[in-house]
Amino acid sequence: MSRRGERPPPEALATLPVAVDAMGGDKAPGEVVEGAHRAATGHGVGVVLVGPPEQVGDTQGLDLLPCTEVIGMDEDPAGSVRRKKDSSLVRAAELVRDGKASAMVSAGNTGATMASALLRMGRLPGVQRPCIATPLPRLGRTPAVLVDAGANAECTPGMLVQFAQMGAAYVSARFGTEAPSVGLLSIGEEPTKGTPLVKETHALLNDEAASGDFEFVGNLEGRDLLPSPADVIVTDGFTGNVTLKTLEGSLRFLFDTLLGVFGTDDETRTASQALLPHLLPLAAEFEPENTGGAMLLGTDGVCVISHGSSNATAMLNAVLVAHECATRGLADHVAAAVRSNEKG
Amino acid sequence: MSRRGERPPPEALATLPVAVDAMGGDKAPGEVVEGAHRAATGHGVGVVLVGPPEQVGDTQGLDLLPCTEVIGMDEDPAGSVRRKKDSSLVRAAELVRDGKASAMVSAGNTGATMASALLRMGRLPGVQRPCIATPLPRLGRTPAVLVDAGANAECTPGMLVQFAQMGAAYVSARFGTEAPSVGLLSIGEEPTKGTPLVKETHALLNDEAASGDFEFVGNLEGRDLLPSPADVIVTDGFTGNVTLKTLEGSLRFLFDTLLGVFGTDDETRTASQALLPHLLPLAAEFEPENTGGAMLLGTDGVCVISHGSSNATAMLNAVLVAHECATRGLADHVAAAVRSNEKG
Repeated sequence: MSRRGERPPPEALATLPVAVDAMGGDKAPGEVVEGAHRAATGHGVGVVLVGPPEQVGDTQGLDLLPCTEVIGMDEDPAGSVRRKKDSSLVRAAELVRDGKASAMVSAGNTGATMASALLRMGRLPGVQRPCIATPLPRLGRTPAVLVDAGANAECTPGMLVQFAQMGAAYVSARFGTEAPSVGLLSIGEEPTKGTPLVKETHALLNDEAASGDFEFVGNLEGRDLLPSPADVIVTDGFTGNVTLKTLEGSLRFLFDTLLGVFGTDDETRTASQALLPHLLPLAAEFEPENTGGAMLLGTDGVCVISHGSSNATAMLNAVLVAHECATRGLADHVAAAVRSNEKG
Repeated sequence: MSRRGERPPPEALATLPVAVDAMGGDKAPGEVVEGAHRAATGHGVGVVLVGPPEQVGDTQGLDLLPCTEVIGMDEDPAGSVRRKKDSSLVRAAELVRDGKASAMVSAGNTGATMASALLRMGRLPGVQRPCIATPLPRLGRTPAVLVDAGANAECTPGMLVQFAQMGAAYVSARFGTEAPSVGLLSIGEEPTKGTPLVKETHALLNDEAASGDFEFVGNLEGRDLLPSPADVIVTDGFTGNVTLKTLEGSLRFLFDTLLGVFGTDDETRTASQALLPHLLPLAAEFEPENTGGAMLLGTDGVCVISHGSSNATAMLNAVLVAHECATRGLADHVAAAVRSNEKG
């Protein structure tokens, strides 16, 4: 499925628009178009919307690639991508494949977004399975990334090693991190702790880190995730997805609880006025809309998977991250990271 | 390994002391003895300490079963239990086995505590593997319990079904919950989401719930854990341990962050004085020392596994929970829940 060598070089990608699935997410098309418009007018990033014109409506002057179909949030990913060949998701992926867009962005059906990117762009050479990299905030520092955040419920040790390589390439390309540190999520620090999958991966990562692309810091536990001492946290997509949603849920629960306390009476409302200026910047670091969304790694082209509840700000940031990563040659870096393993 | 029928009946257990590993945990023996003393003097619960007299020191007038060995926090669980036959953990488990204590409590090496209980008390008839049940707070309601919180990194669908049965029996015995609801931790609501383990378990739980001992509410996601809509959340011990530590870590991180904001300047310190009276009762619900610790389910006798950092209050609550669960016939309820499955 790979198309090695056909992707335009990074300097050419910089001149291409980002393909935005205008119909993806709970707030499409309104907030999606608004976010794309802000990226184009406020940041000079080219955008091409993809969607059925009559459903998209006002494009705010942005280019639109018309299509006739939309994949719903609850549709079967693989089946819908096979069936709906003229859907906004499939057409967006084809724009990247055909060198007409630098990257794609969607806040729609996550599985269908992955399937579109995988089936239309193809996998990078040597990549067994693409994975999802999701940022975890580290107050005042660049975020850590969790791989795999949910693309692959079942994994082999070899896949987890590739997730580490791809995740390290991603934080290098996006944040400029040199020799990123990689930790393996487990249930104890000792290499003997965990499932056979984790124990075997631990040994492989030790070997792989010797090649020099990343530093392996050993096992991490759930309590180490906020803030993560490692730039990349590797796990299977089942554990990763459960962990990520556990973090999201506990943070939201505590924020809601805190807001409830603030509103108890006049005294607490007054007190909250003194605290909010200090709390809001911290809360902003935990707000998914500010992180640019999750990145699909391992496909032959850049694909950003935004949260289904994305608003215009989230879409703006997703477009900016997609453009930046494409321009910095993310796919080339990921391909090189995986290739270096094949040689070793 | 089971000893069906030898355990004293609940009414006899109520008259027996709780065996407390005086040397277990970071704050042993001082805080452990203090907590046990409070249980005895303040709540009339009999206690027998177990430990080397010269290391335990002042027993505050409590009975002490002397032994000569202690299993350290980092020792190999199975090996240390086999080797150290006169250790405080092994002797505590033998007191329960021999009908001389109603239950055992330790804040020491978790793996060695499980191994001692399993090897000395034995498994209940039909139980494949004991599991750890850990409470998850639900503000103002009885806690939910997560099973397995870390005893078994590798599980089969049959084991997960037994965890559900044992967890349901536990919340019934401890909190009086009638027809407890059970949820299965996965990465989506649909029965088709997750690993083969989760998908097969989903089908089995549907069948099992028809027998009437619990209600199966389907899959839960990580974001549903606080507060959990189900009384029992079932998962394998790897995912359970990662999830639990992720929750602990994120809550601690946010509490610490909040305390940091409170201390910013005079204005925030003043504001915090208005809020703390409302926040502290909430924080107390998240404090492990108040929950009585984790319960080992499936052994032929009650065993409470306290947090390694347990202080006197944590030990007091652990002793009270151990006594209460033994007196209510927890092991019999767990045995009956698993037996009803074997008939089905």
